[in-house]
Amino acid sequence: MSKGTINVSVDNIFPLIKKFLYSDHEIFLRELISNATDATLKLKHLTNIGEANGVEYGNPIIEVKLDKKKKELRIIDQGIGMTEEEVKKYINEIAFSGAEEFIEKYKDKDGKDAGIIGHFGLGFYSAFMVAKKVEIITKSYKDEPAVHWECDGSPEFTLTKSDKKDRGTEIILHIADDSTEFLEESRIRELLVKYNKFMPIPIKFGTRTETLPKPEDAKEDEAAPTKEVDNIINNPNPAWTKQPTELEDKDYKQFYRELYPMQFEEPLFHIHLNVDYPFNLTGILYFPKMSNDMSIQKDKIQLYQNQVFVTDNVEGIVPEFLTMLRGVIDSPDIPLNVSRSYLQADGAVKKISSYITRKVADKLKSLFNKDRENFEKKWNDIKIVIEYGMLTEDKFFEKAQDFALYPTVDGKYYTLSELKEKIKDLQTDKDGNLVVVYASNKEEQHSYIETAKEKGYEILLLDSPIITHLLQKVESESDKISFVRVDSDHIDNLIKKDDEQISKLSDEEKESLKTFLDEVVPKEKFSVQLEALDSNASPFIITEPEFMRRMKDMQKTGGGGMFGMGGFPEMYNLIVNTNHELVGEILNTKTQKKKERLVSQALDLARLSKNLLKGEELTAFIKRSYEMIK
Amino acid sequence: MSKGTINVSVDNIFPLIKKFLYSDHEIFLRELISNATDATLKLKHLTNIGEANGVEYGNPIIEVKLDKKKKELRIIDQGIGMTEEEVKKYINEIAFSGAEEFIEKYKDKDGKDAGIIGHFGLGFYSAFMVAKKVEIITKSYKDEPAVHWECDGSPEFTLTKSDKKDRGTEIILHIADDSTEFLEESRIRELLVKYNKFMPIPIKFGTRTETLPKPEDAKEDEAAPTKEVDNIINNPNPAWTKQPTELEDKDYKQFYRELYPMQFEEPLFHIHLNVDYPFNLTGILYFPKMSNDMSIQKDKIQLYQNQVFVTDNVEGIVPEFLTMLRGVIDSPDIPLNVSRSYLQADGAVKKISSYITRKVADKLKSLFNKDRENFEKKWNDIKIVIEYGMLTEDKFFEKAQDFALYPTVDGKYYTLSELKEKIKDLQTDKDGNLVVVYASNKEEQHSYIETAKEKGYEILLLDSPIITHLLQKVESESDKISFVRVDSDHIDNLIKKDDEQISKLSDEEKESLKTFLDEVVPKEKFSVQLEALDSNASPFIITEPEFMRRMKDMQKTGGGGMFGMGGFPEMYNLIVNTNHELVGEILNTKTQKKKERLVSQALDLARLSKNLLKGEELTAFIKRSYEMIK
Repeated sequence: MSKGTINVSVDNIFPLIKKFLYSDHEIFLRELISNATDATLKLKHLTNIGEANGVEYGNPIIEVKLDKKKKELRIIDQGIGMTEEEVKKYINEIAFSGAEEFIEKYKDKDGKDAGIIGHFGLGFYSAFMVAKKVEIITKSYKDEPAVHWECDGSPEFTLTKSDKKDRGTEIILHIADDSTEFLEESRIRELLVKYNKFMPIPIKFGTRTETLPKPEDAKEDEAAPTKEVDNIINNPNPAWTKQPTELEDKDYKQFYRELYPMQFEEPLFHIHLNVDYPFNLTGILYFPKMSNDMSIQKDKIQLYQNQVFVTDNVEGIVPEFLTMLRGVIDSPDIPLNVSRSYLQADGAVKKISSYITRKVADKLKSLFNKDRENFEKKWNDIKIVIEYGMLTEDKFFEKAQDFALYPTVDGKYYTLSELKEKIKDLQTDKDGNLVVVYASNKEEQHSYIETAKEKGYEILLLDSPIITHLLQKVESESDKISFVRVDSDHIDNLIKKDDEQISKLSDEEKESLKTFLDEVVPKEKFSVQLEALDSNASPFIITEPEFMRRMKDMQKTGGGGMFGMGGFPEMYNLIVNTNHELVGEILNTKTQKKKERLVSQALDLARLSKNLLKGEELTAFIKRSYEMIK
Repeated sequence: MSKGTINVSVDNIFPLIKKFLYSDHEIFLRELISNATDATLKLKHLTNIGEANGVEYGNPIIEVKLDKKKKELRIIDQGIGMTEEEVKKYINEIAFSGAEEFIEKYKDKDGKDAGIIGHFGLGFYSAFMVAKKVEIITKSYKDEPAVHWECDGSPEFTLTKSDKKDRGTEIILHIADDSTEFLEESRIRELLVKYNKFMPIPIKFGTRTETLPKPEDAKEDEAAPTKEVDNIINNPNPAWTKQPTELEDKDYKQFYRELYPMQFEEPLFHIHLNVDYPFNLTGILYFPKMSNDMSIQKDKIQLYQNQVFVTDNVEGIVPEFLTMLRGVIDSPDIPLNVSRSYLQADGAVKKISSYITRKVADKLKSLFNKDRENFEKKWNDIKIVIEYGMLTEDKFFEKAQDFALYPTVDGKYYTLSELKEKIKDLQTDKDGNLVVVYASNKEEQHSYIETAKEKGYEILLLDSPIITHLLQKVESESDKISFVRVDSDHIDNLIKKDDEQISKLSDEEKESLKTFLDEVVPKEKFSVQLEALDSNASPFIITEPEFMRRMKDMQKTGGGGMFGMGGFPEMYNLIVNTNHELVGEILNTKTQKKKERLVSQALDLARLSKNLLKGEELTAFIKRSYEMIK
């Protein structure tokens, strides 16, 4: 048996870094600025704890400088710097994570890492993804001469003295020919805004001209004086890093505009996340106005780690129904670069996900309790999230009982328990079941709604695309409650009571009418039922049984289990009101032709009511009606 | 000045591999099976060129074995194997790409790489992403003893002799505690199917029982004999690796079912891609039946490299409009793990993209020429791809002139040039412009279509969601042609001719009528116009100017440039036909009330025709109409 040590051949590590380390080369800038930030925060920490022998921390910034002609990009910090010893140790030993050692040494007593970014250890070498040569000029805060390191991507480097006077590190990238995109000012600005917009040290990129106030003795046609000022691209103290007590409503709105500058509409409300045990998480989530199209609105939440942008895909971290929200989550405890199945199994991530769900539910409840009127006004813009959450997360379903609203066609809003209380007298059927009547469209179901209103029923307006699924869930979770759509049956059957129906027609007349109607009404479309309704109700009414319609709805939204089985038949009930004058007239008319004409006009009007008269049949109906006006 | 060599500290490379090398840990299996395939193909190549001193290639397979109890996963090949020397060289030197050296040495005369997978060089070490210990037992095809290598993820390894007798390599992974998902049979099968379904060497995973035919002398109640056979999970010779001449239509359909086992519908047709200069690309694309919802259907094309699955996201490689297709693309020339902006700038990728576009256009043209009737039948299922391509790719727009179809409401199909020829006599207006009349919905625009048909016009049926954008493009690309929707104006104005209109009403009567209508017709909804039309035309007609409607349409599909500006006003023209009997009656009726009633009934019927009468107004109309029947 022999033993040995695996030997890493460095000639081949560089191409590897270039190829594999990060799938996206643009990441190099985030890495270098993270290092510069790290170096600056280290200095701050050392001066704070009095170990920086007399060095003043001051107001350090990080500067990014572009020289397109020379093909150079520089990142300059005023941080802790490195001695020759440290360059040899930290830079020349790849994968030696300087940050880790530092954290170990200078940890706070309570184990916190004092805000140091330690996640992107290998970051520096990502420079070689875009540069053919990299230089480091660095001077330590310790009283030692500055050094100058140079490397062209081969494992050989040179190290010389430098006459740099200021403390800090300057990285010079000589951009490679296949990466010239990173010599474009617009591209660099884009990257700085994408990844570094909220990093904790000010980042300067170029200057801009600022107009000063005119001196009082200036002549009228004299131009106002101007001066060049540093162009700082980031906000080092973004709202989510502050305590909720430090912030007012306008600050949250202002931060929303910072996050989504192209978004004109204001958010409806925000949720400030702030927890440090058993995991570390800060952030602000916003409820935007939602439309009913769920898919478009996803993936607006940004994930940060210690103020460094990581991704805007929070799938697996935030429960799916909340990916429709917007905002920021910042946590060092979320594993990066791992698969979704890994994320879903990770304990910390599970806890984070249920913490976020709970916070959202709590916020909704408190908004509801504090200002119900305002909550009701916002309901239509937020319901899709809440309803989707109720459908997919059982815990959220429970909590939502306190604030989930059921609006009526008249603009009233009830919780489920309020609704039950309100309708129990009038809307309990003969078997003791509570029957909730709803509509999905005020316009299309107008005549049915009017009829049900006349009975004194409350009619809900439920129009979300997933509402059928949610109703099934509500019905199965509570006892003796069922939902029926207003056009699912004729008014006396919507809520079945023991009232006797009295028909104006005798049994023989009914039979004769039924026989005639079965002949002239198309069997494949309508199933004729005679009912003795109020004489003021419509003569003909088309209904579609609740169960059938739900199956169709669920098939449309892909949850009916009938996928691939083809559509349901278009089949309706035709309720004929035997107590209506017109129906009596149909029965008593002698001429077959006139009789048929009465039926077809009445049937067309009933179809119009249910939005079923279209195309050629509609054109024929209109023509016939013009003639009837004359 | 000092010089030095960057020293890679191996203690830290392993965690790095684990963390950063691939974002998805499941990739390890693809890598190891790629290596096993590689080793087998190398042996094949050596026996082919007579350098394998007497070794028989035979029918080698790769075996994957799972032992959940022992927490072991094994990958066993019968390939080239390694000598002790080679293990030291290839395994112990990380990032030493064995494949590259091999390719250099054994290249074909014409520079081809003999089908060897050389892209996943560092693959072996990805095993440490999921294993706490890895063993290699390997015996070379050369007459040398087998060796046994072991490593627990630290840089120390041990190397001993092994008594393995068969040629080939066995990799044993001792799965780590955080990766036990890879001890589940279902998970391993899932990965093998995802990544290795079409790799060129048969892969065995377990066995399955096969029923044999009963012997002729078997008793009736005797069970048929069975035997255990190797369960091969892959198809080593997928259709796209063959020449089109070797394949029949049924082979392409069979391969489609292999690719999409859950897909019940057959593809409409296929396109076989096969090119080796100036880039290497094979593949088969399929046109499935398309619906009008473009977004759902994307990302079904699978990208392979030398039969190894890479991704099903081909964004940037295939032009966007073709991402709605399905199938396989296999090319070693597509850079992996690079950003989208890099892909878009890459010369080879650009060429691949335009090659694919050209092939698709050529195929469509040849289908059109060979069997036009069949092409017309398929048009509705494929038009969305073609129209979207015409809109977004200028080259495709040009080529599509030969096969893009314009269907009519009567089920005829014209190319643009055929259509021009067909309609030029009847549909040229007084300024010499060719006017194409179209509808977007046969049902909703039924009465307008009927009226235009009576004039002898051809009416196209154009109902894609992007059609408005495409019409704008067609109009701007050709001279003197314009498209108008059938309900954009009254029939005499759709195509303006020099015909004089003769009105039954005198100028005074017209003025009196206009004054009255302006009083009773709501101004904010309708702009009243008197027109002398045919006396058989409708008395009231509602139209919406083409330009306004297009602006609205484009706003809906997000291309109108009016984003965020709120909706357009709902404003229509009300055309009153002064030659219709009913209009005369309105004018001559004395009672104001009766006059108003006539107007409101006629206006309601006109609104019904244009699908504008809804809700309360519809209910009132229906009630009024029931009364008129009696």
